[in-house]
Amino acid sequence: MSYTPRPEDQRFILNAVLDAPSRLRALAPFTDVDDALQQQVLGEAARFVGEVVTPLNREGDEVGCRFANGAVTTPPGFREAYRAFVDGGWPALAAAPEDGGQGLPTVLEAIVYEWMSAANHGLTMAPGLLHGAYACIKHHGSDALKARYLPQLASGEWLATMCLTEAHAGSDLGQVRTRAVPQADGSLRVAGGKIFISGGEHDLTPNIVHLVLCRLPDAPAGPKGLSLALVPKQLPDGARNAVHCERIEEKMGLHASPTCVMRFDEATGWLIGEPGRGLAAMFVMMNAARLHVALQGIGLLDAAWQKADAYAQERRQMRAPGPAPASRGSEAADLIAEHPAVRRILDTQRAWVEGARTLAYRSALMLDVAAHDADARARERAQRWCAIVTPVLKAACTHQAFHGASECLQVLGGHGYVREWGIEQIVRDARVTMIYEGTNEIQAIDLLLRKVLPDAGAAMSAVLLELRDALDAARETDADVQRRLAQLRYLGTTIAMAAHADPRLPYEVADDYLRLVMLALLAWAWARIDAADATPAERAARTGPAAAFRRWVLPEFEMRHGIVKRACEGIALSHAAGSALQQS
Amino acid sequence: MSYTPRPEDQRFILNAVLDAPSRLRALAPFTDVDDALQQQVLGEAARFVGEVVTPLNREGDEVGCRFANGAVTTPPGFREAYRAFVDGGWPALAAAPEDGGQGLPTVLEAIVYEWMSAANHGLTMAPGLLHGAYACIKHHGSDALKARYLPQLASGEWLATMCLTEAHAGSDLGQVRTRAVPQADGSLRVAGGKIFISGGEHDLTPNIVHLVLCRLPDAPAGPKGLSLALVPKQLPDGARNAVHCERIEEKMGLHASPTCVMRFDEATGWLIGEPGRGLAAMFVMMNAARLHVALQGIGLLDAAWQKADAYAQERRQMRAPGPAPASRGSEAADLIAEHPAVRRILDTQRAWVEGARTLAYRSALMLDVAAHDADARARERAQRWCAIVTPVLKAACTHQAFHGASECLQVLGGHGYVREWGIEQIVRDARVTMIYEGTNEIQAIDLLLRKVLPDAGAAMSAVLLELRDALDAARETDADVQRRLAQLRYLGTTIAMAAHADPRLPYEVADDYLRLVMLALLAWAWARIDAADATPAERAARTGPAAAFRRWVLPEFEMRHGIVKRACEGIALSHAAGSALQQS
Repeated sequence: MSYTPRPEDQRFILNAVLDAPSRLRALAPFTDVDDALQQQVLGEAARFVGEVVTPLNREGDEVGCRFANGAVTTPPGFREAYRAFVDGGWPALAAAPEDGGQGLPTVLEAIVYEWMSAANHGLTMAPGLLHGAYACIKHHGSDALKARYLPQLASGEWLATMCLTEAHAGSDLGQVRTRAVPQADGSLRVAGGKIFISGGEHDLTPNIVHLVLCRLPDAPAGPKGLSLALVPKQLPDGARNAVHCERIEEKMGLHASPTCVMRFDEATGWLIGEPGRGLAAMFVMMNAARLHVALQGIGLLDAAWQKADAYAQERRQMRAPGPAPASRGSEAADLIAEHPAVRRILDTQRAWVEGARTLAYRSALMLDVAAHDADARARERAQRWCAIVTPVLKAACTHQAFHGASECLQVLGGHGYVREWGIEQIVRDARVTMIYEGTNEIQAIDLLLRKVLPDAGAAMSAVLLELRDALDAARETDADVQRRLAQLRYLGTTIAMAAHADPRLPYEVADDYLRLVMLALLAWAWARIDAADATPAERAARTGPAAAFRRWVLPEFEMRHGIVKRACEGIALSHAAGSALQQS
Repeated sequence: MSYTPRPEDQRFILNAVLDAPSRLRALAPFTDVDDALQQQVLGEAARFVGEVVTPLNREGDEVGCRFANGAVTTPPGFREAYRAFVDGGWPALAAAPEDGGQGLPTVLEAIVYEWMSAANHGLTMAPGLLHGAYACIKHHGSDALKARYLPQLASGEWLATMCLTEAHAGSDLGQVRTRAVPQADGSLRVAGGKIFISGGEHDLTPNIVHLVLCRLPDAPAGPKGLSLALVPKQLPDGARNAVHCERIEEKMGLHASPTCVMRFDEATGWLIGEPGRGLAAMFVMMNAARLHVALQGIGLLDAAWQKADAYAQERRQMRAPGPAPASRGSEAADLIAEHPAVRRILDTQRAWVEGARTLAYRSALMLDVAAHDADARARERAQRWCAIVTPVLKAACTHQAFHGASECLQVLGGHGYVREWGIEQIVRDARVTMIYEGTNEIQAIDLLLRKVLPDAGAAMSAVLLELRDALDAARETDADVQRRLAQLRYLGTTIAMAAHADPRLPYEVADDYLRLVMLALLAWAWARIDAADATPAERAARTGPAAAFRRWVLPEFEMRHGIVKRACEGIALSHAAGSALQQS
C-alpha cells in the first residue's frame, strides 16, 4: 500500500475550516487565486507525487546514497524525479514572479511539501532547503549575488544547503569556528569543517549553493561574531571551488538523503548581509524552514496512518466485542479496525493529522499575510502568530510523527516491524525531524524564553485572545477551549513570576509549556473543524477523530498544566522560605 | 561507549529494597544462597557480558543474519560467544539439578538476561526461548520426551523455538491451521507454515527443538482444537527432519536474530500434553517468557541511558541557566547534563529503570516462591502476583524501552541519529518487544479482561492490599501511594459495573488501566526504594530519579484515571438514558 495524496482533505480544511480562498484574495498578489485554481494546482501536485515521488521511496531507503571519491550518488530514479520536479515548475511555485517564480500562495507550496515528505522524505530533503536559501539571499544578498543565484534557486536548477553545525558546536552556534578572510576582490576565503550537512554533495544539480556560518578575522567570540557566507560548489567561471564532502553519515533512517561531513579548504565565497549579522540573516528563513519541518511531520504521520488504516480494513483477527459490526458478514473474525484498541490508534492519529494541518495551513496563510497585507497591523498580527506558533508546530508535529507512526506500526503487529508495508521506514525517517532545524527542546526554549517571557506574555496573550475571539462561547466545545486559553494566559504570568525567583524554572517547564500550547491550539482547531460547514460525508469522516481528540489527546492538557503549576508553586514556596530565613 | 553491567545497582535492589537473600533462604532449594554467592554469580555474569557479549552487538546489527539455501549464518563471533555461554553453564543457571542445572534462583537468571539483552539483544534471543521450552516439556512432556530433550535444553546444547503464528493467524491463535496426523508408532506427521519464528534456523546448535501449535484431525475449530507438538530439526536417529526455513525477514532492527518463515513438510513430531490442550501447555511458559521480555525492555532502556549519561557528562554546549555548576570550571560552555531538559530525560529514564527493576526482580522472586514455598497460601499469593503483574511489566517496560531509548537518543541530538554511539540501534531493536510475546494491547486485555474482571477484581484487590501493607502510612510518600492503590481498587469496581452495560468498555480502557496499574506499582517501588537502608552514595544517586518520578512520571496517573472514569461515567449516563427511554 503506497501513500496517495487526498486533495479533498486539504480542500475541506482550506475552504470550510480556514476560509482560505477569501483571505488570500484580499492580498494583492493573489486576487485571482480562487478555489478552482487551488484545486487545479493541488490536483496536478497530487498526481505528480503519486506517480513520480512515491514509487522511489522504498528503494531510496534500501539502496540509499553512495559515497565514493568525494562524490555522492543518489538512489535509483532520484535524478530523473528531481528533473521532473524542476521541469514541472514545482520549486518555483511560491517564488516571486520577478525571479521566474509562479507567485502562488505559500499555503499551496506547504501542501505540496507535506505530500512530498509523506511520499518520500529522502527525496524531499533535496529541495526542502531551497526556499530558505532563496529567502535569505533575497533579503540579505547583494545585487550581484541576487542576480547570480536567485533565478537558479527559484527554479531549482541549483540546490542549496545550510552549513551551521560543527563537530564541537551542535545546538551552540556561538562556538562556530569556521573562518572567512576577506580578499582584495571583495570575496572571502572560507576554511573550516561542518557536519550534518543535508545535501552537502549529490548528483541532482550541477551546482550547490552553500550558506556557511563563519567568523571573520577579529570577530568577537560567541553568536555575535558570526557572519554568513555564500560558497558555491561551482565558481562563476565554471571552476570547481575548494568545497569537499569527506564522507556521508550512516543513519537510523533517511538513507536517501546524504548527510555530509564538509570541508571548506580556503574556498571562495561572498558575504551575505553584514559582518557579524550571520545569525540574523539565517533567522530570516527560520519560520519558513521550521514550518516546513512541521509539515514533514504531518505528512509522515499521514503516510503511516494511511498504511495502518488500509491494513486494519483488510486484516481479520478475532471477534470484536459488542454488537456485530456490519463488516462481519459471514466471517468468523472481524476486521481489526473494529477492535477498540486499533480504532483508538487510528482515530487518535487522524485527530493529530487534521488538527495539525489546520494549524500549519493557517501558519502558511499567515506567512503570506505577513508579507503582503496592505494593513500594517494585520501584517504584525500575522508575524506574531508565526513567531509563536512555528516552534510549537515544529516540535509537536515532529514528536507526533515519530510516536504516532510507531502507534500505526503497532496496528500491523509483526507485519509492521518488517519492511513489507514500509511503515518501519517511516518511523526511522521521522525520528530525525525531532532533532534537525533546532531540536524540539530548543523549540520549547525558543517559545518560552524568547517569545513569551521577554514581553511578559503580551504577544502570547494577544495570540490567545485572537483565538478566543474566533470561537463561539454558545457552543459547548468552544466554551471549553476558551477556558483552556484563559488558563494558558494565566499560566504565563505564573511562570514569569516564578522565573524571577529561579532562572532555571522556565527551562525546566519549557517542554510542558510547549505541549500545553499545542494542545490548546489543537483544541481550537478541532472546535473550528466542528463548526465548519461540512458535507455529511466530511462530517462522518471526522466524528471518530473528534471524539478521540477529546477523550484521549486533550486530557494531557490538565496533566501538563498541573506539572507546570506545581513547579512554579515549588519555587514560590522555596523562595518564601528563603526570604523568611533571611529575615529571621 | 559500550554497555557495562553494574552489579552494585542490582545488589542494592536485591538486598536493601527487596530483602531477597532472606526471602530466598526461606525456600528449601535456596537455603545456602546467601549474599556472597549471589554477588559471586553476578560478578562473573557481569564480566562475561562485558567481555564476550557486548563487543559483538554492533557488528551483529550491521552484518546481521544471512540466509542461503535454507541455512542461516549468524553474525561474526556469535557461534563462539554462544559456545562460551553454554560452556560457562549460564543456560543451566536456574534449571533443576536433576536435569543437569545449577538450581539457582530465578531472580539471578533474570538479572543475567537483563544484562545480556542490554549488551546484545540479538544474541540473547537465541537462548531466550530455551527456558520456556524447558518448562513446557518438563510440565507436560512424556517421560520419553523428557529423557530425550530436557538435559540438552537445560544445558543449552540444543536451542528451541515457539512456533505459534501463521500468516493469517497473528494474535488470533484460534485460526491456526497447521495439522498433525497421528501415526501408528505414536508419532505425528506435522504439516503447515509458520511465520515470525525467532531462531527457527541458525548455526549455533546442531539441533533445534520446535514447539509447534497445531491441530489434530477432527479437532474442533477455534483455540480449543489446538494441540502442541515437539518437532526437532534433527530426528533421534540423526536424520534431518522435514522442517525447512524458507526465508528470514528484513526487519527494522534485531538483525542479529533470524526471524524465520518455517515450513513443516509432513515432519515427524510428538505430542506434548493432551490433545486439544496445546494452549494450556504453552501458557505454562507464559509468565516466565513475558517477564523475560520485560527484562529485555529494562536492559535496553538501561543501555540507552548509559550512553546518554556518558555523552551528557562529556559534551559541552552553552551555559546552563542558574548558578554556575561545579563542573563548569573555566569552560565557556557547560556539560549538557547540567541543562534542565537533558537532566530531566536522564533522571526520568533512570526512575523507570530502577523502579521497573524493583518490580521485575520481585516478580522473579515470586516465581521461585510459587514453585518452592512450603506454605500453599504463600505459593498462591505469589502466583496471583505473577498472573497480574507480569502482563503489566511486559507492556510497560517494553513501551518504555522504545520511548525512553528514543528520549536518550535525543540527548545526543544528531549524534544519536547516526550509528556512531549505537543508540539508534537500541531504539530499532527495542521496538519489537512491544509486539512479540503478545502485543502490548493484548497484555492490557489479558490483565483487565482475564485477570481482573472475571473475579470482580478480587485477585487484583488482594495484590493491592498486599502492596498497601508493605507501606508505612506515617511517611508522606507512602501515604500518597496508599491513596492511589485505594483509587485503583475502587476503579476496578467502576469498570466492572460499566462493563455490564457495555461489553466494549473494558476493551476501550484496557490500555489506560494497565498504565494506571504500572504507575501505582512504580510509585510503590519508589516508596520502597526511598525507605531502603541505603548508603549515602546509594541515596545520592537516587535523589534525582526519585524527584523526576514524582514530578514527571506519576502525574500520568491522574490523567489516565480521569480518562477511565469519564469513559465509565459516559456508559453509565447513556445506559441510564437508555433505561429512561425504555420506561417512557
